Amino acid sequence: MKIGYLGPEGTFSQMAALKYAKYKGECELVPFSGIPVVLKAVEDGLIDECVVPFENSIEGTVNFTIDSLVFDVDLEMKSEIVLPISHNIAARRDCENIEPVKILSHPQSLAQCRKFLERNYKNADTVQVSSNSEAARIVSQSIEPWFCVTTEAAAEIYGLTILKKGIQDEKHNETRFVAVGKGEGIIDGIKEKTSIVFSTENKPGELYKILDIMSIWDLNMTKIESRPMKNQLGTYVFFVDLECHSAEDMKDALKMIKRKTTFFKHLGTYDLID
Amino acid sequence: MKIGYLGPEGTFSQMAALKYAKYKGECELVPFSGIPVVLKAVEDGLIDECVVPFENSIEGTVNFTIDSLVFDVDLEMKSEIVLPISHNIAARRDCENIEPVKILSHPQSLAQCRKFLERNYKNADTVQVSSNSEAARIVSQSIEPWFCVTTEAAAEIYGLTILKKGIQDEKHNETRFVAVGKGEGIIDGIKEKTSIVFSTENKPGELYKILDIMSIWDLNMTKIESRPMKNQLGTYVFFVDLECHSAEDMKDALKMIKRKTTFFKHLGTYDLID
Repeated sequence: MKIGYLGPEGTFSQMAALKYAKYKGECELVPFSGIPVVLKAVEDGLIDECVVPFENSIEGTVNFTIDSLVFDVDLEMKSEIVLPISHNIAARRDCENIEPVKILSHPQSLAQCRKFLERNYKNADTVQVSSNSEAARIVSQSIEPWFCVTTEAAAEIYGLTILKKGIQDEKHNETRFVAVGKGEGIIDGIKEKTSIVFSTENKPGELYKILDIMSIWDLNMTKIESRPMKNQLGTYVFFVDLECHSAEDMKDALKMIKRKTTFFKHLGTYDLID
Repeated sequence: MKIGYLGPEGTFSQMAALKYAKYKGECELVPFSGIPVVLKAVEDGLIDECVVPFENSIEGTVNFTIDSLVFDVDLEMKSEIVLPISHNIAARRDCENIEPVKILSHPQSLAQCRKFLERNYKNADTVQVSSNSEAARIVSQSIEPWFCVTTEAAAEIYGLTILKKGIQDEKHNETRFVAVGKGEGIIDGIKEKTSIVFSTENKPGELYKILDIMSIWDLNMTKIESRPMKNQLGTYVFFVDLECHSAEDMKDALKMIKRKTTFFKHLGTYDLID
């Protein structure tokens, strides 16, 4: 089985893909350069499934993954993979005891470690690069007194020493990834989550009616997000995650929601890999 | 008046800040390295206001701005600035007629021009850098046959030639920015938008009750987004944008919403600068 992920190697996306591969058994992991590209590769059958960032991510925005799943490809969410986010400060072995002049990382990682960096390296400039892994690569190949904020995997790949682990300001930080593949949208048992997307007519109170249906079938909504519909100003699509203790009820509720909405897509019914 | 923005120069954020400065009159623009940093500078009184990306952004994620406004700083949204997103392919003057080996840009910009790049430069590798502006800087200082996807402003700053304008795949692409400053949360007239954030008790049907209040006061909800509450698993905060044709009704509705929620913050009531 071939599983694609948002590369390069050493990023959180690869760590999520490794976690998923461990759960699935025998897998080959293949890095891709972007979210739309890796999803397209699944649709074209070049790979079987892919793991992409979905929520509160370091490497990409949820909007990208969600928009692609809704508008661009016809694929299904198979699993959700939750990864605790832990940042590390790393350096080349010969630079361990110096004062760094620059600290490189992805902009979001730098922001997530802002307080730590201000406290410990207040004279160093922060430099934004495209990924945590790229930061490690640059530092490893440079002769300058530069440090980086990176993943354990990337520090290992590029032979860097981790000076301190878990330097993020917010200790309970998680990123959610989804495994995506081809599917038929079948609900064949109780799963932890169901993700749907729908549009309603653009007038006050329409969303309220849909939440009413969820309440009738005792569905618990764990996430809701509206996004403007592409090319149709003033029209919104709603992304909703639902929990339900009966596969039968979930099927019936979705049937009713589909009937009461102007656009509906069942993105998947799946379990979490924690 | 000093207005900060998410730098470097030449990014969409600077273009939004320029648009806002034009609307405000006499202003000095100051670039900052990150969203939390620039917001903090407003709170500390180093600058008067700042312009940061808010929705569907190229340079940052909405989550960052929203989370900071809710949890980290006590500031108010003053205006929303809408910017049409237009990407351009640019090169050094001596490279105009060659076949590029690499095309550099921010990952989201590359993704937004994916179809165009595949059609026109299918042999070129795409390379992710930290901003559109950084891509232009690197290309301008390199002697390699590299192109970049960048803004008009950055192409001008770094003396690059734009080979084609408006190369994004999706023609109706907008990014929203907000101007943020100190304030008292006063609603002193009819404005286009009101942004609030709140939490409810964590049980099914609680959000439904709040939407009921909005429906009673005829508030039109134009955006809703749930996000997990930091450090409290299973608890959600909801970000909602509302429209209302009466300042009095809006005040009364907010008073009731505040009474029925476990956490409430009025982020601002403001107009759009289009």
